[in-house]
Amino acid sequence: MNEMGIGPEASFVLNTFAFLIWGALVMWMCAGFTMLEAGSVRTKNASVICLKNIGLYSIAGLAFYVIGFNVMYTDVGQLFGSLELFVSSTADEIALLNADDAGKAAATAAVTGGDPYSSMSNWFFQMVFVATAASIVSGTLAERVKLWTFFAFTAVLTGIIYPIVGAWTWGGGWLGGGEGWLADLTGDVFKDFAGSTIVHSTGGWAALAGAIIVGPRLGKFRANGQVKATPPSNVPAVTLGVFILWLGWFGFNGGSQLALASALDAVWMSNVLVNTNLAAAAGVIAAVSVSRSILGRVDLLAVLNGAIGGLVSITAGPDFTEHYYAIVIGAVGGVVVVGGMKVLELLRLDDVVGAVPAHLFAGVWGTVAVIIASGGNFVAQLIGIVAIGAFAFFASLGVWFALDKLIGARVSTRVEELGQDASELGIEAYPEFVVMPDQDDDEEFRKAHEEAEGK
Amino acid sequence: MNEMGIGPEASFVLNTFAFLIWGALVMWMCAGFTMLEAGSVRTKNASVICLKNIGLYSIAGLAFYVIGFNVMYTDVGQLFGSLELFVSSTADEIALLNADDAGKAAATAAVTGGDPYSSMSNWFFQMVFVATAASIVSGTLAERVKLWTFFAFTAVLTGIIYPIVGAWTWGGGWLGGGEGWLADLTGDVFKDFAGSTIVHSTGGWAALAGAIIVGPRLGKFRANGQVKATPPSNVPAVTLGVFILWLGWFGFNGGSQLALASALDAVWMSNVLVNTNLAAAAGVIAAVSVSRSILGRVDLLAVLNGAIGGLVSITAGPDFTEHYYAIVIGAVGGVVVVGGMKVLELLRLDDVVGAVPAHLFAGVWGTVAVIIASGGNFVAQLIGIVAIGAFAFFASLGVWFALDKLIGARVSTRVEELGQDASELGIEAYPEFVVMPDQDDDEEFRKAHEEAEGK
Amino acid sequence: MNEMGIGPEASFVLNTFAFLIWGALVMWMCAGFTMLEAGSVRTKNASVICLKNIGLYSIAGLAFYVIGFNVMYTDVGQLFGSLELFVSSTADEIALLNADDAGKAAATAAVTGGDPYSSMSNWFFQMVFVATAASIVSGTLAERVKLWTFFAFTAVLTGIIYPIVGAWTWGGGWLGGGEGWLADLTGDVFKDFAGSTIVHSTGGWAALAGAIIVGPRLGKFRANGQVKATPPSNVPAVTLGVFILWLGWFGFNGGSQLALASALDAVWMSNVLVNTNLAAAAGVIAAVSVSRSILGRVDLLAVLNGAIGGLVSITAGPDFTEHYYAIVIGAVGGVVVVGGMKVLELLRLDDVVGAVPAHLFAGVWGTVAVIIASGGNFVAQLIGIVAIGAFAFFASLGVWFALDKLIGARVSTRVEELGQDASELGIEAYPEFVVMPDQDDDEEFRKAHEEAEGK
Repeated sequence: MNEMGIGPEASFVLNTFAFLIWGALVMWMCAGFTMLEAGSVRTKNASVICLKNIGLYSIAGLAFYVIGFNVMYTDVGQLFGSLELFVSSTADEIALLNADDAGKAAATAAVTGGDPYSSMSNWFFQMVFVATAASIVSGTLAERVKLWTFFAFTAVLTGIIYPIVGAWTWGGGWLGGGEGWLADLTGDVFKDFAGSTIVHSTGGWAALAGAIIVGPRLGKFRANGQVKATPPSNVPAVTLGVFILWLGWFGFNGGSQLALASALDAVWMSNVLVNTNLAAAAGVIAAVSVSRSILGRVDLLAVLNGAIGGLVSITAGPDFTEHYYAIVIGAVGGVVVVGGMKVLELLRLDDVVGAVPAHLFAGVWGTVAVIIASGGNFVAQLIGIVAIGAFAFFASLGVWFALDKLIGARVSTRVEELGQDASELGIEAYPEFVVMPDQDDDEEFRKAHEEAEGK
Repeated sequence: MNEMGIGPEASFVLNTFAFLIWGALVMWMCAGFTMLEAGSVRTKNASVICLKNIGLYSIAGLAFYVIGFNVMYTDVGQLFGSLELFVSSTADEIALLNADDAGKAAATAAVTGGDPYSSMSNWFFQMVFVATAASIVSGTLAERVKLWTFFAFTAVLTGIIYPIVGAWTWGGGWLGGGEGWLADLTGDVFKDFAGSTIVHSTGGWAALAGAIIVGPRLGKFRANGQVKATPPSNVPAVTLGVFILWLGWFGFNGGSQLALASALDAVWMSNVLVNTNLAAAAGVIAAVSVSRSILGRVDLLAVLNGAIGGLVSITAGPDFTEHYYAIVIGAVGGVVVVGGMKVLELLRLDDVVGAVPAHLFAGVWGTVAVIIASGGNFVAQLIGIVAIGAFAFFASLGVWFALDKLIGARVSTRVEELGQDASELGIEAYPEFVVMPDQDDDEEFRKAHEEAEGK
Repeated sequence: MNEMGIGPEASFVLNTFAFLIWGALVMWMCAGFTMLEAGSVRTKNASVICLKNIGLYSIAGLAFYVIGFNVMYTDVGQLFGSLELFVSSTADEIALLNADDAGKAAATAAVTGGDPYSSMSNWFFQMVFVATAASIVSGTLAERVKLWTFFAFTAVLTGIIYPIVGAWTWGGGWLGGGEGWLADLTGDVFKDFAGSTIVHSTGGWAALAGAIIVGPRLGKFRANGQVKATPPSNVPAVTLGVFILWLGWFGFNGGSQLALASALDAVWMSNVLVNTNLAAAAGVIAAVSVSRSILGRVDLLAVLNGAIGGLVSITAGPDFTEHYYAIVIGAVGGVVVVGGMKVLELLRLDDVVGAVPAHLFAGVWGTVAVIIASGGNFVAQLIGIVAIGAFAFFASLGVWFALDKLIGARVSTRVEELGQDASELGIEAYPEFVVMPDQDDDEEFRKAHEEAEGK
């Protein structure tokens, strides 16, 4: 027991409980992404996006259990991981669970002497992070990526790609014992507290690669340079989604302190929540302020994405950033998102919900900003951003390319016109409501699309 | 204080706090049921189902306070319970609350010496469980059960029926001192960690009894054997509901560890959350995989119910089930739900949201599966399933029958055609949206219904 | 360490963690207000109300950081506050964060010796309270207050008006050192545990002042005395909002215990949650029972507001109120809300969501009821209600008046007819759904409105 009165068992309990509670809030972010995306797509694709989201969360959990966690933490010293596929409680924990009363004190001492928290509480917390990365992809590619292709990509992303990135940094190593090479190379100074780059940019790169392979929605970009407006079909749902994400982010960043059982951790964790909230608030206000001048209107989706941009950009360093810097970082993050949405339009890359600007662009900004705010090594940050970005992007691009060749990445033109709900799933999202005919089946748009595709 | 440093007061605080936090998440499940049901019914019945759900949660809380908790825990040795109707803090706790500074140390010692947690935190956690059982019923009987009849049944279920089941197992006893007879009879080996049978099957049996008395919706089953499709009217709402339930289940199962203040409890609780999540994920994937072959389509409602089936089936034993068994149990649970939806259709039993398959069928499976996964006594499980099932079903059937005779269980044909929102409540769910005329008032359907009813 | 085994560091950690978790749930209430309001307004104003809500939460956080917290707690001894605008961690905490290993024990001792919790966890918890007060205003004034005027008022309310009220009671003082004058004057016996008056009535008075300045919606009150029905446009969204608020209230009231780290606090906190839940449940049942006789129908919005009325009215004293009194207080609160909605109609004051009855009227009732339930000084309660009410109302009235003169408080008749979404924002809430023409542009209604306005 330390002199202030927190013994090893209390410490173990508090750290574990923090993982579980904050992790539950991170799981809740999946509901946030679902609402955001279901509200952003045309109503004719809203059922499929719901299925994609609950499916991706399920796949992420299973893939991370069977493969991913192992790749990230356990056997990454061997190139292809080990055959010990299933994670479980530590031997000490199993002894504790099985010990009779006589042996319990010894087993408890072994557990709390060796580990700061229950191993499965850590697994739970890491698992919900994986799911977050996968959620980013579904939004960008909504309305045209095939259901089963998306699920296949999700399995690879959450079982292999993300865990490799994790192994380089937070995990146990890669191509060698000890730490990950990125942590080694940079002398452990690559700063990314809760994953602006490791989680959000990884997801953003995977989404960008998918957007390139899958292509834009039919009629989104016309030959004359005009961009078809595709406003959210259900704004309250989108707004709810953003509030859910904001709440979940307290778990995402707060739990990333990885410990609760000391005054130091409690102070850090409080500062983390405050900075997280201030950055998100500043992102909203900044996006409101600039969206008219950049996008020509107070674009509500852009404003809501401003919150996410603020959240992503503070995620690299919410712990030791001064509070007023958190406001600056978040505000710039909000502007980056709004500007990024315009840039993607100019590049004719179709991102249904603006996930690439919000998670990738703001993630890069946040990973740089952390050293402006609190010192650090600019080169280390750059190495991290580039190495992770290059791997995540090209690995994803390869997987998307292969899937496109093997089973096709994109639904047929007819399916896209009819909507994935009716044609791919057979379940409409709002079957009783009278819906206006979508202009996607407009002949002019289709021609424009085919020209844009170079046909 | 134990040798690891958690004293009796810290232990009391941690256990209490776990009840409160996890209990709050279980309360949140009521919102999940509400969204699931409001999205599943025709839009013309969506307001009434909202009212039913907030009403049932309110009634459950009051009935469990005035009667239920007492029946379940306090005076069940006397056949009709005692007259001490209102639960409250223990005498020690009241002394603690009232003690001046001089007496506070003694009062604290008395409280923490005698109790592992605050009595009202336990009440709170048990109360939200009762509400869960009642929530199951509202979904099955949606669109035709009378509002006030449903409320009356809810009061009986939450004040008397569920508490009696609870008294047999978790509570203080029944027809005798000490433990409940079911716990006694089976030598305390009936395993139902968080209530696959005690909560979910009880709710499922009550719903099934109601479905028999109330009958199917007008036109659901046609004379020619065809079943009218009644897809969800608002898929994003249903999906949100399932995510809410999934999140809430971390509280439902995690809090059922009933303690937090030791390394053992923290390890258990972590394993419980991990198993809960793996089973739900497996339920989704299994349901996606089989729904086309069983139901003829990738039925999104079936897939979403697959998550619930996975959750219900792991609920009997998330603590000492190995993680890979949790996947198996959840996957089978998902299949049970999809198959169960088909079985109900064949039996011409109308369950609007599939709550009977998800909570009753998967609950039975989970209560059996727990001994496959971790050993135990098959006979004890069977006795529990049958005794609780028989009591819950026949008691509910009697109450539904009596209510039907006294005040009528079902709305009139005219009310059902017009929708309960307009005719029973006078508030439409979506008054501004243009809605397609429902086919329930189709003459052919009505004739078919009347034939099905044997008129 | 006390004799029961909770040392100063464990105490610091537990108290801090309670603030963070409960505070996160209070933040979630903003999502509840958003859903409640977005579902209550005409669909043509649903996007703007979403923007107002995420905007107000952002503004509240920033304004409370830059000005409000300082006014409320730090320098209120000086009339205009200090120039130390930015709150931050205490000097001891900063020492702890910066200390090397050698100095850490000393820094920890300093922190945990002096403070019961991390300073920023307290800031976080207070900040989400401010946002709650601001959320109340947006609902009342929906559908006609200008976006930017509303944002400007929010900044003043959250940066200055609410913090001054807070300084009088919970904060550090006002016009003098030590305690706030209201606390001083009443000898510290003004009882308002979590803010029936301080938070909810303050928000309610600000909303009422706004309603007077902004005026009723076009056509709401006709010359012949009839009141145009404006039912919610999306009932499931309203219901979800109320469930979110109910969940969040566990944080609002539970966290207001301000401590967790003793058996006493744990028992109190449990009682607080139980009373909060019982009062809300009773509010629902009471509102269901009386809404037909008062309003002429089972008004679902009134019933849902009954829950909020129950919650607001128990907020002044959920800690030492006996549980059965909580039921009585909540039930009366529910009736107060339903009656209050009728009273506002008779006064021709237009409150879109019934926020003034739910937060102001029920708040006054709760602040009186607390002494009926548990003793206290009626005069002190009255002084508090009147002083805070007078200040909050007249200060708000002045700000609304000034804003009206400077930039206009209300949108033009044309904007209101078209809806704020199309005309002020350019984003429809549900662009694909076919919506029935609203009757606001009915000639008769417009004439009636103009007559009502005395033109």
